[in-house]
Amino acid sequence: MIKGLEIEEKTRFDDLVTNLDKATQELLITKIKQAYPSDHILAEENSVHHDIADGNVWVLDPIDGTVNFVAQGTHFAVMIAYYENGVGQFGLIYDVMNDTLYSGGGQFDVYMNDQKLPPFQDRPLNRFLVGCNANMFANNYHGLRDMIEQTLGVRVYGGAGISMAAVMAGQLMAYFSYIQPWDYAAAKVMGDKLGYVLLTIDGEEPDFTHRQKVMFVPKAKLSTIQTYLSQT
Amino acid sequence: MIKGLEIEEKTRFDDLVTNLDKATQELLITKIKQAYPSDHILAEENSVHHDIADGNVWVLDPIDGTVNFVAQGTHFAVMIAYYENGVGQFGLIYDVMNDTLYSGGGQFDVYMNDQKLPPFQDRPLNRFLVGCNANMFANNYHGLRDMIEQTLGVRVYGGAGISMAAVMAGQLMAYFSYIQPWDYAAAKVMGDKLGYVLLTIDGEEPDFTHRQKVMFVPKAKLSTIQTYLSQT
Repeated sequence: MIKGLEIEEKTRFDDLVTNLDKATQELLITKIKQAYPSDHILAEENSVHHDIADGNVWVLDPIDGTVNFVAQGTHFAVMIAYYENGVGQFGLIYDVMNDTLYSGGGQFDVYMNDQKLPPFQDRPLNRFLVGCNANMFANNYHGLRDMIEQTLGVRVYGGAGISMAAVMAGQLMAYFSYIQPWDYAAAKVMGDKLGYVLLTIDGEEPDFTHRQKVMFVPKAKLSTIQTYLSQT
Repeated sequence: MIKGLEIEEKTRFDDLVTNLDKATQELLITKIKQAYPSDHILAEENSVHHDIADGNVWVLDPIDGTVNFVAQGTHFAVMIAYYENGVGQFGLIYDVMNDTLYSGGGQFDVYMNDQKLPPFQDRPLNRFLVGCNANMFANNYHGLRDMIEQTLGVRVYGGAGISMAAVMAGQLMAYFSYIQPWDYAAAKVMGDKLGYVLLTIDGEEPDFTHRQKVMFVPKAKLSTIQTYLSQT
């Protein structure tokens, strides 16, 4: 455990926030407001929830994977995305302990530190691993477990940021979870540039207003995946 | 995918072996036999299965986490353990891509590279994460999912070596899976030194002869865990 860390439970014992989540968010907001005083913020902590469709909006997740942060001291990320009138301009996912920054989207190529990431490389379903929320897998939500059983298997890493970074790095084919706008905003912008799409499990655009069950999947595999998800 | 990699399916499409698994095992055996010509080998590939109870036995897993190796190019390990007449003398788990070597057990302290690992630090169940085989979790095998729902959650990393290394590093409380002797031999020796025990789910010593459902758990949490596992 990290010395000086203050842990609070939000909705239940495994929904945690720490003083460092809040301090990191405040630092990011202060720096953004200094540079761009009229821009807006949509962020995880303290109910700072500006409408994504209205003007210049910075979407912030100060510590994504707070449970990993608290219990492991690793496998967490800082995530930032910038949208203009609802259109993503770029995203950033920083895997802190591995010192790896994923950046790009919009008019920018996507990089993992200094290495430009290639677009999705297709191969058969049974040569891929898939990242998934553990309960959605275990409950076979919309046939997810049936679909994953056609692949090499499931991985559960416990943070949307590091999981979607693993998708973009080609380590996972796709990622399925039940997450908030600040959990998917950055990956959605970057992924679009690499051949991935971020949609709800029902195939709709996410709404950027509340927690939804979403998938981050290669466009080239979307129809295959949807044949499994059509189960209820 | 790695260039020049030859992938074969063993028992089914997600049970893989590559030319590098076999070449690594041959290299290890050659080096061991040069130094200790009369010692014996218990290893994953090519049915080299000497009885663990008979003399000086090296237990080898040339690439643990072959699926991760093939599909991710990371999250795999080389594992070596040395036993004398069934008694573990030391173990080695090398997380290749992170260049992290876990070593020790028997008369040796346990190190993560140059850093001596502390023994298990107890805290409440709901402040820990747990590593588990995905299907054992999803099927609530012996009440495992019920137990894990009392913790901060499950993680599925897909390699016994990196998962048990994460236990010893304090990132996971425990690990539950269905694995072979070469998957648990090294962690069993090292873990004993740090306050962990490697037992079958039924609480018996593993037999070192075939695949078994095992747990790698803190001795201080064993009775708590067993109250959940007594469910069938």
